[in-house]
Amino acid sequence: MSSRKVVELFYDVVSPYSWLGFEVMCRYRNVWNIDLKLRPAFLGGIMQGSGNKPPGVVPNKFKYMGHDLRRLSEYFDVPMQMPANPFEAMFEKGSLPAMRFVTAVQEKEGDIKMEKVSRELWKRIWNEDKDITQPASLSEAAAKAGLSDSEIKEALAAYTSQKVKDKLKTSTQDALALGAFGFPMLVCHVNGKPQMFFGSDRFELMAHCIGEQWLGPKPDKAASKL
Amino acid sequence: MSSRKVVELFYDVVSPYSWLGFEVMCRYRNVWNIDLKLRPAFLGGIMQGSGNKPPGVVPNKFKYMGHDLRRLSEYFDVPMQMPANPFEAMFEKGSLPAMRFVTAVQEKEGDIKMEKVSRELWKRIWNEDKDITQPASLSEAAAKAGLSDSEIKEALAAYTSQKVKDKLKTSTQDALALGAFGFPMLVCHVNGKPQMFFGSDRFELMAHCIGEQWLGPKPDKAASKL
Repeated sequence: MSSRKVVELFYDVVSPYSWLGFEVMCRYRNVWNIDLKLRPAFLGGIMQGSGNKPPGVVPNKFKYMGHDLRRLSEYFDVPMQMPANPFEAMFEKGSLPAMRFVTAVQEKEGDIKMEKVSRELWKRIWNEDKDITQPASLSEAAAKAGLSDSEIKEALAAYTSQKVKDKLKTSTQDALALGAFGFPMLVCHVNGKPQMFFGSDRFELMAHCIGEQWLGPKPDKAASKL
Repeated sequence: MSSRKVVELFYDVVSPYSWLGFEVMCRYRNVWNIDLKLRPAFLGGIMQGSGNKPPGVVPNKFKYMGHDLRRLSEYFDVPMQMPANPFEAMFEKGSLPAMRFVTAVQEKEGDIKMEKVSRELWKRIWNEDKDITQPASLSEAAAKAGLSDSEIKEALAAYTSQKVKDKLKTSTQDALALGAFGFPMLVCHVNGKPQMFFGSDRFELMAHCIGEQWLGPKPDKAASKL
């Protein structure tokens, strides 16, 4: 176990490219000799803290993003659908309550349930075009993720607490300190040195840097072909 | 020949990611069943026309770009070195004379010499930290690319002509009309429909879309391993 390389994935469920990165890394943690650490954080804080601007402000870039996500979601086999009003979903409504809720689930129920809740939140915003800001929306996602009524109640009681707010803030600050300017951000700890990879398009390079092999976004299918 | 898919590569020698894309596509035109069309264009015009901002304005993004380029240039086997003052090289001095010269070489001497001159200009700015704006710099690059004295003289006489200026402008406008907001931009013509891929990190996806196989950035070495 001690030879496993630690790979941190910083993500926010408001970010569609984070969903791609999340699913790929969840597949590869069973293929590569890595210890994957999921780090929910707040993308709004990253954009503000780094002075970065979202891609939506350049019309050609925004239009491309739609094509790019459609092609990538098919190739990566991640069931993505653009919401009717992506601007509203991403920038007006945002993800602060959702990411606090994810953090509360991690705090109270652990990483496995947090992972499932994250996926259900992505499905809501990036497939079903549903809200992820209201308590009822968060409960619904948690129920689909398999949390019991009492677990959901506990997470809902905790997600507005100072402790959870601070935990999310710390995670966001950790990401900024490591050089984040957007999500997903992958940080590989190789020989005690963090190596940062931004986006969902550096897996092949990352594999090369950590001494593993990239088998495409669906390694199980690739492996069965070998 | 008629079954070959046309792939256009829009590039500017001021862009390091364009250099990566250029070398990879020059390797793959011998591996994939494609007809590669090199389209020199002016990145400054793309940024202005699309309203995009260069990555250099966000400190974390700029810092990352340095790491990313160092890792990618090693992995792609493209001999890149960051200039001492990348801001000055990229944004203050810029590439308008260089891209007009490349366009003049294409006009007068054809695509093969244009390709070689482009590569020598990239080497100057992105490896040797040398100027690419002065006539003497352009001559030197052209001489290294194997152009004769008379060919260089001809290109230098043509690169400030209205015809060459207009040709570069048309190419830049073509890129904008296809949805460009930066370079490199690859446009694959599949069943009469253009499919656009931005950057040097969509080759695997692009291969999937045109029915070819991605063998990594050095296909010759990969092929000899099979």
